Amino acid sequence: MIELVGFDGDDTLWHSEGYYRHAEAEFERIVSAWTDIPAEDFRSRFFATQRRNLALFGYGAKGMALSMVESAIELSEGRIPVQDIHRIVVLGKTVLEHPVELLPGIREAVEAVAREHRVVLITKGDLFHQEHKVEQSGLADLFQRIEIVSEKNPRSYARVLAEFDLDASAFAMVGNSMRSDVEPVISLGGWGIHMPYHVTWSHELEHGVENGHPRVIAVDAPADIPAAVARCG
Amino acid sequence: MIELVGFDGDDTLWHSEGYYRHAEAEFERIVSAWTDIPAEDFRSRFFATQRRNLALFGYGAKGMALSMVESAIELSEGRIPVQDIHRIVVLGKTVLEHPVELLPGIREAVEAVAREHRVVLITKGDLFHQEHKVEQSGLADLFQRIEIVSEKNPRSYARVLAEFDLDASAFAMVGNSMRSDVEPVISLGGWGIHMPYHVTWSHELEHGVENGHPRVIAVDAPADIPAAVARCG
Repeated sequence: MIELVGFDGDDTLWHSEGYYRHAEAEFERIVSAWTDIPAEDFRSRFFATQRRNLALFGYGAKGMALSMVESAIELSEGRIPVQDIHRIVVLGKTVLEHPVELLPGIREAVEAVAREHRVVLITKGDLFHQEHKVEQSGLADLFQRIEIVSEKNPRSYARVLAEFDLDASAFAMVGNSMRSDVEPVISLGGWGIHMPYHVTWSHELEHGVENGHPRVIAVDAPADIPAAVARCG
Repeated sequence: MIELVGFDGDDTLWHSEGYYRHAEAEFERIVSAWTDIPAEDFRSRFFATQRRNLALFGYGAKGMALSMVESAIELSEGRIPVQDIHRIVVLGKTVLEHPVELLPGIREAVEAVAREHRVVLITKGDLFHQEHKVEQSGLADLFQRIEIVSEKNPRSYARVLAEFDLDASAFAMVGNSMRSDVEPVISLGGWGIHMPYHVTWSHELEHGVENGHPRVIAVDAPADIPAAVARCG
């Protein structure tokens, strides 16, 4: 039986990826005036820089802003004027300042799950930004615990389970990312409830979860989460 | 009697501020070639930008790097070339990459305190960077718990005390910052053990701790910490 249900934050409780996408599109628009690199190459080179910098910056909007500044100079071969660099810094700030807008029906879904189980929020990324989003979401009081982790790997989830003194088989994780929310949890023996978001960062698309895994349940919308939890275990 | 002893990370367990200072001096050297602003004004205006950005970035080297880029453009009135902006981004990265070097005698001090009390590491700043520093320090196993917080205020400390189900009067915090390590703890009724570091960021110098407060003990070096803990309570 499931005793603890984890919820992811970004793109599960509230909208997030759209703000990153918008910033990236703006970034491309600004820099493309100073380079002839085709759009496809431009995006893959920017993604490569972000990936390389993940090892130093971790996830989040500040790291993205620094990667944008670095890439803008490299991809334009130094032709971009500093005024445009300034616009890119401001663009990075808008990602940090975006309003926290809940997914329709998610509050009701968390409340319904919380009536039957203990619930925990497990979110990845920048501590300061995530804390602000949790606070602005108005959902903090629904959760027994709020865990902000730098990486969602089996070790992070195992630590949360240890805090609750719980076997992974009694844990289900709800989230939009196969890579971050589902794969590490099922690798420990837990359950994954996958609710895809309409956009997903390329990095999060890389995962090794087999199709039709017996402990993975797909849902289309928040309203389906409580029934999915009931099917676990 | 003291039951739990908290240790700060940066400039208490390991060297940190010196790396920020070095980066700031380099930043000033790079940008000063493009502006006639006197050094004193330059520093206070950069500090003002950092302070303003704290509300959006929080603490840490990534926020500092973004503030440096922003200030470089503003203070040079757009005259700084992008090649120098690139150097500033690289400079920000060096702060994230600095080696973790323990303060002499600190391991022995933590070990001595840990023989008599439960010990917890409470450090502020960027989650990803702090986790790396904790790991590289080789001290993680000495602590019952490692808490990385975005701000060291009474609320953060109260949450840690609640995790241990402990009254503040049974808690002593060891750190180099009056503002972050001592003031919030004594405001809750706990004890502060202040071990100044040879350099302190201006922001951390602002505090309201009265001279000679009865629950604040000053120490000069790690070797004096165990005796100071014994004097609390």
